[in-house]
Amino acid sequence: MTQNIYDNDAFFSGYSRLPRSVEGLDGAPEWPALRAMLPAMRDLKVVDLGCGFGWFCRWAREAGAARVLGLDVSENMLARARATSPDTAIVYERADLDRLVLPPGSFDLVYSSLALHYLENLKALFAEAHRALVPGGHLVFSAEHPIYTAPSRPGWSTNNTWPLDRYLEEGPRSTDWLAKGVIKQHRTIGTYLNLLLEAGFTLTHLEEWGPTDAQIAAHPEWAPERQRPPFLLVSARR
Amino acid sequence: MTQNIYDNDAFFSGYSRLPRSVEGLDGAPEWPALRAMLPAMRDLKVVDLGCGFGWFCRWAREAGAARVLGLDVSENMLARARATSPDTAIVYERADLDRLVLPPGSFDLVYSSLALHYLENLKALFAEAHRALVPGGHLVFSAEHPIYTAPSRPGWSTNNTWPLDRYLEEGPRSTDWLAKGVIKQHRTIGTYLNLLLEAGFTLTHLEEWGPTDAQIAAHPEWAPERQRPPFLLVSARR
Repeated sequence: MTQNIYDNDAFFSGYSRLPRSVEGLDGAPEWPALRAMLPAMRDLKVVDLGCGFGWFCRWAREAGAARVLGLDVSENMLARARATSPDTAIVYERADLDRLVLPPGSFDLVYSSLALHYLENLKALFAEAHRALVPGGHLVFSAEHPIYTAPSRPGWSTNNTWPLDRYLEEGPRSTDWLAKGVIKQHRTIGTYLNLLLEAGFTLTHLEEWGPTDAQIAAHPEWAPERQRPPFLLVSARR
Repeated sequence: MTQNIYDNDAFFSGYSRLPRSVEGLDGAPEWPALRAMLPAMRDLKVVDLGCGFGWFCRWAREAGAARVLGLDVSENMLARARATSPDTAIVYERADLDRLVLPPGSFDLVYSSLALHYLENLKALFAEAHRALVPGGHLVFSAEHPIYTAPSRPGWSTNNTWPLDRYLEEGPRSTDWLAKGVIKQHRTIGTYLNLLLEAGFTLTHLEEWGPTDAQIAAHPEWAPERQRPPFLLVSARR
């Protein structure tokens, strides 16, 4: 199964202090762009793949979703998610997304934020997401951008360029982020999209996210992210 | 209108000596991948946007296309294309692709190889391509990959990485390739795809092209192209 780095104590401790962990969706700079790609939530049945602390699950309910299933591989995160809200229309379950099984035709929206780049078997996941959706149902996800995951040595050069290499060499990348040896799976944009299309989805929007002018005015330290997008945001329909 | 660099004598002279100019499609390493994205050509009505010397137009006819319209802004290239084949089912016409007008519903395939990254008004071009196609008609194009067009100083670093910057800063880039001051329009993959979708197309395949193992065995000097894709290949349907 996929490395469960979120149950590594050092990683979990570091992750828990990130703005997106403390402030929730408002601490995630890409959230406004991702939210704009979501359908109206009223009465939807939603599953969140890699729900973490459950911020999106709770937002979805507040936005009118009928019920929300939050799935994550991390017991640490599920425990905190469950402790945060008494809402019985949100159910949190442990799941290995590389071996996902969902009831067919049972969701209107499959959502995933920054989880898919950890998975080894994205083809199977997209196939299962497609089966789990009703006809016309939505898939909306974010992942680390392939430009971000590709390099041998991800990080800025002294001349403020991003030294890209290995873009077309798909497969695992080991990086030290919050803990040593965090394993991500590098895939090209082409592979993300072709796997989606082969699973039967129709692409509806793709955004290579970088901070807006307003975000840079508020956080000048984010400006370098415009040199190369850190996140890929995708929406598709069954 | 878009810079007509192909009628610059120095550029045209250099371009005419490239393998893809001398050997035609077989001199273009991405051609096998692009060809694999084409529909069966038998009896199709085809338009080639940026037809150059007409290699694709002639191939399309040999593959069974009923008639082919080759459009290019360069008089130099059209003159040579016209002189190369007496086939009256191929018509070459001068056109500024930034102001393209085509008869509606009159083509089964709109094709374009390495031309769209010169255009200022891709939104209008995709809209016109959509109008020009019959329902179910195909659009297949290649363009320079945004990773290739983005940088301030495109070129390999001494450590064999590609120093990426300005990826999210869309707009003109002036490069010195065969002649000084060749103007290309940098756009993200997201923009290429969203303009396609907004024009009414459905994406069917996207490939970020790099040389195959067999191609690298035959041309070891192409190996660095795997570090960052030089070309973007896209197919879509009306």
